[in-house]
Amino acid sequence: MSLTIVSESRCFGGVQRVYSHLSRETGTQMRLAVFLPPAAERGPVPALIFLSGLSCSEENFTVKAGAQRYAAEHGLMLVAPDTSPRGEGVPDDPDYDLGQGAGFYVDATQAPWSRHFRMYSYVADELPVLIGEQLPLRPGALGISGHSMGGHGALVLALRRPDRFRSVSALAPICQPSAVPWGTRAFTAYLGADPSSWRDYDTCALLADHRFPGPVLVDQGDADKFLSTQLRPDALAHACAAAGQPLQHRSQPGYDHSYFFIATFIGDHVAHHAAALAR
Amino acid sequence: MSLTIVSESRCFGGVQRVYSHLSRETGTQMRLAVFLPPAAERGPVPALIFLSGLSCSEENFTVKAGAQRYAAEHGLMLVAPDTSPRGEGVPDDPDYDLGQGAGFYVDATQAPWSRHFRMYSYVADELPVLIGEQLPLRPGALGISGHSMGGHGALVLALRRPDRFRSVSALAPICQPSAVPWGTRAFTAYLGADPSSWRDYDTCALLADHRFPGPVLVDQGDADKFLSTQLRPDALAHACAAAGQPLQHRSQPGYDHSYFFIATFIGDHVAHHAAALAR
Repeated sequence: MSLTIVSESRCFGGVQRVYSHLSRETGTQMRLAVFLPPAAERGPVPALIFLSGLSCSEENFTVKAGAQRYAAEHGLMLVAPDTSPRGEGVPDDPDYDLGQGAGFYVDATQAPWSRHFRMYSYVADELPVLIGEQLPLRPGALGISGHSMGGHGALVLALRRPDRFRSVSALAPICQPSAVPWGTRAFTAYLGADPSSWRDYDTCALLADHRFPGPVLVDQGDADKFLSTQLRPDALAHACAAAGQPLQHRSQPGYDHSYFFIATFIGDHVAHHAAALAR
Repeated sequence: MSLTIVSESRCFGGVQRVYSHLSRETGTQMRLAVFLPPAAERGPVPALIFLSGLSCSEENFTVKAGAQRYAAEHGLMLVAPDTSPRGEGVPDDPDYDLGQGAGFYVDATQAPWSRHFRMYSYVADELPVLIGEQLPLRPGALGISGHSMGGHGALVLALRRPDRFRSVSALAPICQPSAVPWGTRAFTAYLGADPSSWRDYDTCALLADHRFPGPVLVDQGDADKFLSTQLRPDALAHACAAAGQPLQHRSQPGYDHSYFFIATFIGDHVAHHAAALAR
């Protein structure tokens, strides 16, 4: 399952690549955008996996967030996977919030999704091993972050797999997917109608008996049109307080859900992960 | 011809807007992306017009270059116009290098282009007046830059209109359009087959009797696949040397023609313009 280079460009003294590889978990060719900072020419570096939101591919974060500048400064590798399996033979839905581009970082159990939609295991297990074997990753120095649906993925993966991820942050995450339209539609399709099967993929529910061994950084724009209907940062704050989970939750005045919001604050997130992974 | 807000997002403490307006020059609705830095809330600021390359709209620079961070730091407004008129009734060509998305910053004299394709006068005259009247521009504090076809536009506009533009730079500009395939195809269509009519839009030709009253900053990746066939930085260096035009020409090892190249060096360009426009 080796990585094949699809494209590469010099960027901030390092190199921005897109790879493809045949995934064991999804059974499809998956694309992966990777920024290797200048420090990676001298030896292994820590890495940050960034999970994107609905309708995105590996490209959006890579071309819009401007994270490479900060990653070059901190000597951090950036890894941006696609948000779902794709291609002929992979089921899809006409709407943007289900199917291709909307994997929700779960392992689907329901037909027709269960064959390919295994994004949880892809990010939790296949991707860390792949990076460790084929890219200059300092062993164990892996953080995870994401935006919106990807923020949900990052929080769930960090809470369930602190053995894999040593730092976590999120931008405008879907905090309580079991209770909002995006999440309930996707979870019903991928996991079935019984909400008890959704619990392992709901950050607020997981916090009842999981804690991340470190601080969680979350940024949320207060002019985000999805704030109360889909994202529910209040529910995350309550769940973290009840669980004793350290949370740095920043409400950013006037910011919306766009990449202009991500670009503004991604530097703080890169610094957060670089500091945690340096230890 | 007032500016109508199409979208706006908070960004690096300022605001990123897209406007539309009916253009006197092109006779069409034109889109314009504008970043207002935080300093613009307190009073007029200098502005940098950035001209994009073939197939781009006002969006590419705005979402991919990451220039807002630097513009916020320096208190500089960023203005990114579209690269041509567009819409029903506007002529086009099936190829990417002519027609919509490929205005080449000329005033076309040939049918069917001459009615709408007036991007030279649009950028030289209509846009500066529009910005001056409807946005918080410090009078006269206007610089110009661009990439590829837009770098050509920036150099031509600065050489011909130093009354309008007080600073100039370019990234991977088409330096000698009269002598390369992109330029000769476009100039033949827009200006006619007689090369003597192309001279006013060719940087290297203009340098025979024009000089810009200040230094010209140009960055060029040495792994750019268009380097020798379309861009010809060597011709620009020779023409500037012969004319006594101060030129800071930087060959950037390993960089290609992409926005990863632009993102890496746009901070230096913003600083170049901010310094020139502060005087």
